[in-house]
Amino acid sequence: MTNIEKNLEVRDTITAVPGFRASAVDAGLRKLPAPDLALIVADQPCTAAGVFTTNYVKAAPVLIDQARLEAKPNHMRAVLINAACANACTGDEGLRNAEQSAAWVAEAIGCAPDEVLVMSTGVIGVQLPMHKLQKGIPAAAAALSESGWHDASTAIMTTDTRPKRFSVNVNGIHIAGIAKGAGMIAPNMATMLSMIATDAVISVEFLRRALREAVEQSFNRIVIDGDMSTNDTVLLFASGASGKTVGKDVDYHAEFLPGLTAVCKALSQAIVHDGEGVTRFITLNVTGARSTAEARQIANTIAISPLVKTAFYGGDANWGRIMMAAGRAGVKLDQNKLSLWYDDLQLVANGTPLNYDDAQANARAAQPEVTVRLDLGLGDQEATIWTCDLSHEYVSINGHYRT
Amino acid sequence: MTNIEKNLEVRDTITAVPGFRASAVDAGLRKLPAPDLALIVADQPCTAAGVFTTNYVKAAPVLIDQARLEAKPNHMRAVLINAACANACTGDEGLRNAEQSAAWVAEAIGCAPDEVLVMSTGVIGVQLPMHKLQKGIPAAAAALSESGWHDASTAIMTTDTRPKRFSVNVNGIHIAGIAKGAGMIAPNMATMLSMIATDAVISVEFLRRALREAVEQSFNRIVIDGDMSTNDTVLLFASGASGKTVGKDVDYHAEFLPGLTAVCKALSQAIVHDGEGVTRFITLNVTGARSTAEARQIANTIAISPLVKTAFYGGDANWGRIMMAAGRAGVKLDQNKLSLWYDDLQLVANGTPLNYDDAQANARAAQPEVTVRLDLGLGDQEATIWTCDLSHEYVSINGHYRT
Repeated sequence: MTNIEKNLEVRDTITAVPGFRASAVDAGLRKLPAPDLALIVADQPCTAAGVFTTNYVKAAPVLIDQARLEAKPNHMRAVLINAACANACTGDEGLRNAEQSAAWVAEAIGCAPDEVLVMSTGVIGVQLPMHKLQKGIPAAAAALSESGWHDASTAIMTTDTRPKRFSVNVNGIHIAGIAKGAGMIAPNMATMLSMIATDAVISVEFLRRALREAVEQSFNRIVIDGDMSTNDTVLLFASGASGKTVGKDVDYHAEFLPGLTAVCKALSQAIVHDGEGVTRFITLNVTGARSTAEARQIANTIAISPLVKTAFYGGDANWGRIMMAAGRAGVKLDQNKLSLWYDDLQLVANGTPLNYDDAQANARAAQPEVTVRLDLGLGDQEATIWTCDLSHEYVSINGHYRT
Repeated sequence: MTNIEKNLEVRDTITAVPGFRASAVDAGLRKLPAPDLALIVADQPCTAAGVFTTNYVKAAPVLIDQARLEAKPNHMRAVLINAACANACTGDEGLRNAEQSAAWVAEAIGCAPDEVLVMSTGVIGVQLPMHKLQKGIPAAAAALSESGWHDASTAIMTTDTRPKRFSVNVNGIHIAGIAKGAGMIAPNMATMLSMIATDAVISVEFLRRALREAVEQSFNRIVIDGDMSTNDTVLLFASGASGKTVGKDVDYHAEFLPGLTAVCKALSQAIVHDGEGVTRFITLNVTGARSTAEARQIANTIAISPLVKTAFYGGDANWGRIMMAAGRAGVKLDQNKLSLWYDDLQLVANGTPLNYDDAQANARAAQPEVTVRLDLGLGDQEATIWTCDLSHEYVSINGHYRT
């Protein structure tokens, strides 16, 4: 974390973001009654950017949003988010349904259909229940208010146990975001949906660059199970309502980017904390690498290893599995240069176990939060990622997700 | 399976392999009394070959065996296998201990120390208890017999619930192998130990090639959890006791290679069936690929997906997760060309779900054995791998493996 980020106060709440209104309704998409449809609307056309899944199987909303952000990046007015149905692997009908949903939003708020973006989360391979959306969308539009962000953050939850919403103020501008996460979280990018809003005045070029850089330091640094969804999307809308311009009134490097990054980090770390069945939050720090890319490659491989993750679940300092995972990451290593720490306790030096106290090591592995550092002894580059354990509860949740 | 393989009778037993004796003893390596040290000895120097883990973190026995097979491939006399300690991440002391163990075997049976190979399985990062091996090795040598293979196959088990031993006779030669598996199984190569013996007369060149080709069709086609161990080793010894020469009396392509492949397939599939906590055996068949490599890449990515594996555990035909995993495999796909079957039931055609009966799909997903076929619609290449589900029991076993 940079000093600039440290000085930012990230709040676990969103009061309002000038220029935006939000809402949520129960459109009857879920099996049990609960809000399931969120709408965020800007009073005026926004500058907007997005980062999307790199999965070759992309949900209909991803395909539509990518095209619209490319075509009209300065004219975005709204985002519709539904839970309970991913609208992925749904063919042409899925694309038509996504377009129709956006058109109903446009009709309700008064804008062009291609100024509305859509995000979906839920089961893959099922069509959207359009008759429910046809009723739900006008209801959501009628419910819009400046203070609707918390309702929206709750409506987009799937297996999340807590809503995720964070905000920061920096030099008179607001940056605020909501996200849903839980499963299918892997770098490039973290599998989840997030909608971030700011009232800064900012060019498309600056906005795209800021989002890419912030995501790289946050959502792309978290791993839950290594799977990557068909729907991953982070959207960033700028209303300009503050009247303060990034690059003139607000410094890009010292103010806007750190503020955006802080919100993205808070959202992404909250996703790991609230991952499916998670009992431990693990910070993996790979140091002494030849390059950041190699350090990340190793950290990611450790993070997705079921053997590493289950050992943490058991509170077992079975560090050999970390060495094993590091060795299979496809990065050339010298096993005689590897050193390993659990928090402050060094377990391995130059590939050989030290004479540490096993009870002390297990005590560290069994904490709710633990930092594991693996030094490769090859260079001076490093990378950090955040991950979690693999528990019985994860298996329970995902063994019967649809039932 | 080729017609030649179909005509081979692979037996789930090993009576004897001319030229070899085997044994096992309880050397006190495990927490509870049970055989834990296996020895296989050839009466005369053997031609030998090995295939080893590609993990950059290699256990001491792997490093030693690789060097010895390179130096004296026509002079191998014995293999010592211990359970309960992997002798990995053990530095110079681990190497010295592996060498000393081999030297004790050499002393007991009367050969040069570098004619003995060693394999270890168990916890990483712990040194071998040498005082126990010093007593156990002569006891194992004293217990050697032609019918000792079953004892040996039992002694090398870790979390295996059943010993794995298979044999085949082809044109008057014997090929027989034992293996241990269970966790940490991923392609390139399957994480496990296996010792295979034949009484054929065969050159080092033929032997190495046969082992490489057989492993490629068997051990490298199985996935349990995607992790790859520091100790993976398959050894193949040829005693020549049959007097029949491969390439002269025995055809390489029509007899020796199919026989060896059949034994390797039986061993590797038994490893998946007996994987940690496994409740379902899944055959993944990716067809319509541009290349075999791409088909395998996709099959492997599906096989390691925790979301796919937990859905199978739950008997849930949540096929969208298979599409998701295929899409994140790093192979360029056209999602509108993907088609999917569970056994005979087609669920998806050209990227769009068919109007199938969900109960029928779930019934197939809930079988003890199921075949999933994903057609990419891109070409005429294909690949098959064997994998399993991810259960509560897997998490239990691996959350508390050391305790």
